[in-house]
Amino acid sequence: MRGAGAAVPGGVHAFLRGHDRRVRPMRAAQAALRRMRPEGFDGRCACGLRQRTRAAICLFPLRGFAGRPINECLKLERRVAMADKRKTRQTQLDETLLQRALNLARRGVGQTTPNPAVGAVIARGDRILGQGYHRRAGEPHAEIEALRDAGGPVRGATLYVTLEPCSHFGRTPPCADAIIRAGIARVVFPLRDPDPRVRGRGERRLRAAGIQVERGLLRDEAIALNESFLFFHATGRPLVTCKWAVTLDGQAAAASGDSKWISNAASRRYVHDLRGRSDAVLCGIGTVLVDNPSLTARGAGCRGRQPIRVIADAALRTPLGANCIHAQPGGPTWFLTTRVAPASRVRQFEAAGCRVLRVPGRRAIIDFSRAIAALGEQGVQSIFVEGGPSVHAALIRAGLCDRVVAFVAPKVIGTPPGWRRTPVYGWGRDRMRDALGLVHVRIRHFDGDVCIEGDLPALAGVFRRL
Amino acid sequence: MRGAGAAVPGGVHAFLRGHDRRVRPMRAAQAALRRMRPEGFDGRCACGLRQRTRAAICLFPLRGFAGRPINECLKLERRVAMADKRKTRQTQLDETLLQRALNLARRGVGQTTPNPAVGAVIARGDRILGQGYHRRAGEPHAEIEALRDAGGPVRGATLYVTLEPCSHFGRTPPCADAIIRAGIARVVFPLRDPDPRVRGRGERRLRAAGIQVERGLLRDEAIALNESFLFFHATGRPLVTCKWAVTLDGQAAAASGDSKWISNAASRRYVHDLRGRSDAVLCGIGTVLVDNPSLTARGAGCRGRQPIRVIADAALRTPLGANCIHAQPGGPTWFLTTRVAPASRVRQFEAAGCRVLRVPGRRAIIDFSRAIAALGEQGVQSIFVEGGPSVHAALIRAGLCDRVVAFVAPKVIGTPPGWRRTPVYGWGRDRMRDALGLVHVRIRHFDGDVCIEGDLPALAGVFRRL
Repeated sequence: MRGAGAAVPGGVHAFLRGHDRRVRPMRAAQAALRRMRPEGFDGRCACGLRQRTRAAICLFPLRGFAGRPINECLKLERRVAMADKRKTRQTQLDETLLQRALNLARRGVGQTTPNPAVGAVIARGDRILGQGYHRRAGEPHAEIEALRDAGGPVRGATLYVTLEPCSHFGRTPPCADAIIRAGIARVVFPLRDPDPRVRGRGERRLRAAGIQVERGLLRDEAIALNESFLFFHATGRPLVTCKWAVTLDGQAAAASGDSKWISNAASRRYVHDLRGRSDAVLCGIGTVLVDNPSLTARGAGCRGRQPIRVIADAALRTPLGANCIHAQPGGPTWFLTTRVAPASRVRQFEAAGCRVLRVPGRRAIIDFSRAIAALGEQGVQSIFVEGGPSVHAALIRAGLCDRVVAFVAPKVIGTPPGWRRTPVYGWGRDRMRDALGLVHVRIRHFDGDVCIEGDLPALAGVFRRL
Repeated sequence: MRGAGAAVPGGVHAFLRGHDRRVRPMRAAQAALRRMRPEGFDGRCACGLRQRTRAAICLFPLRGFAGRPINECLKLERRVAMADKRKTRQTQLDETLLQRALNLARRGVGQTTPNPAVGAVIARGDRILGQGYHRRAGEPHAEIEALRDAGGPVRGATLYVTLEPCSHFGRTPPCADAIIRAGIARVVFPLRDPDPRVRGRGERRLRAAGIQVERGLLRDEAIALNESFLFFHATGRPLVTCKWAVTLDGQAAAASGDSKWISNAASRRYVHDLRGRSDAVLCGIGTVLVDNPSLTARGAGCRGRQPIRVIADAALRTPLGANCIHAQPGGPTWFLTTRVAPASRVRQFEAAGCRVLRVPGRRAIIDFSRAIAALGEQGVQSIFVEGGPSVHAALIRAGLCDRVVAFVAPKVIGTPPGWRRTPVYGWGRDRMRDALGLVHVRIRHFDGDVCIEGDLPALAGVFRRL
């Protein structure tokens, strides 16, 4: 036995967690492998499984590392450690303080819509003079909060802010001017604000005032914080996430149509969180008629905010007593419909407090391109779509599905002869190699259920171009 | 900010890894929660995500812990630590040495069929006198290897062995007698050997000779080591694992029937490992005609051993040039067929080196109960079933599917109108609450693919009763 000498004390993964985005581990590991002579490895991997041979597989769910031999991970750890040593002290300090600003920004998530969540820290060297975050739309921006928090003079200090400072008069005056006035010497921020009223103007104004500007640090973290805001302003339409649940054998319902419940209570709690983080929740008339969902957000992460309930209902067949209209606490209910919906029916829904948006189009089915655009015009930045199969298929066909969140439950329901029900129906590719491959796959576990979340490549492209 | 003081240095999970089986964490955590006042927690969880509120969710893939609030995990850690302190020094020593015997046994896995993999350690207190493992059927059992390794006298010592010592003359004389002769004073083993020739007789013989016997330590680990051997002797039939791969939207093939490939290269390497660990690989005629699989094991874990290739082919329609007959390196090819298969065709297959088993039954479809029983009579202890959908459905309907291994790939293939293909077809339940729920769910990650493995409750019952 090779014994304890070769054991890995959890360090590989602990280490990689912080670094996997920066070094593109797959490529680095492959390059490292090309150079080195692979050798056997016998130790306990942090993933908890005993690894015995050079072919041992790392099962830790790190993006890009799952399934890699453990000795590749080890080699990579050394490479990353070397790269870190080369990093300058200044970069490390910048990263620490910008990370602090990101943590501050997180406190505002879900409260600032339609504004982004932003945090700011003002420091001279490693001494923090002031900090703050944007609390609510209409209240001061993070930069102003930090300047106020500093109280005294900040001339010559560095401002760390999680998004480009604004340059326009909205409900508050432009932050860039306040920064210039305060005498800040250097501004560090991760990425430009794609809002057409800013889009580089804030940065240019700072530079014109002689302020040193550094952009690009902790970019991915800053994107993750405000995904739908950034996507909305970069593309002009809301970010659309399709969510479904399937059994292990790929069924979205039992033979009777019954689908209560595929996923377990822990998964459903997470779904409520996801609803609460979206501006709108959307489902089709089929789902309303079969499941009568409430479409409310009852998760811990909602912080009292309820998404708009959007029903795609071409002929307004939703019963007037449906849960999606009356269940409380719930957001306002909007109907997407077509020209075939009777005017009397529209009046009934309006009388019940709903809003009815007629989507232009010649046919009696909803044109989702126009429907999603119409929601965007109403300021909806993110839509969480909960089926059914035809709605998912229509969105995918129109190229409007940006992200997929699929819950897979460890149960087998089977399909009787002649009967099958899958979560995407009405659109399909002929060859497996033409399947829509998701990128940046995130995998979560909920008491045995697995939640697989991934982005369509186009979404990743939008964020890359920010 | 609550800051670094509340950070969890990875200890929770590192700790839980070793304990989650023993303490039934869900129940313990619930009990603990009832007693305590939940409080906020702000630290970095070992799962790599920043946890901020009392509702923060632990995403680490521990059975029973995924999705739990991180402060439950913390409370549980303290409870387990207390329980550990109470454990006696003797039990800890026994566990360490039996764990060593289990590690030795692992070296023989895959080489000892039809015998179980067994390891043994002889120790006086914490001093190891000898150790060994069963290398190959026909060679000495682990106990004898350990006695030989000790060389000198072992009177009064303790024997740690991973399975009840045998009491019968097989290819080697009974180990129980050798143990008694050597003067061993105490024997520690995790569970009884369900082989009808032993089944408690070894234990009784040791007790009759005045040896102190302790059974039950590290039971789950010992079962995991020899699952198919134990299942086969406990039930008289092979352990059947159904394996399939689906896209995120639950499809087992694209609209053209194409299924190459749903899962990625890392997943397929693992499939080859699983094949190599099985006595037989089974697929239906449909899969042979569509995919022409080789059914060979080319993984790193096979150690040169190839499973028997079993084709369920009621009318012997397999082409004589099929890969499952000719691809090398591969195991022997056996056909399960019915009375409708023409005798001339049977002769052709036998001339090609195949074995043809006619499964009794009146109809022209294979009776899987009898087919699996027939394979068991030939000494096959485990069968790895790779589809297609009708074979899986037939096995599930007959109550013969013991375990499911499903690969879920992060891609969406969709289903055109009128076309759907799921991995279990021809059997189904009407209500979601009647779905077959899998237990002891294991989740593995392969470069974005997720492998979900679970047991049917009946299989768990067999192991519980061992």
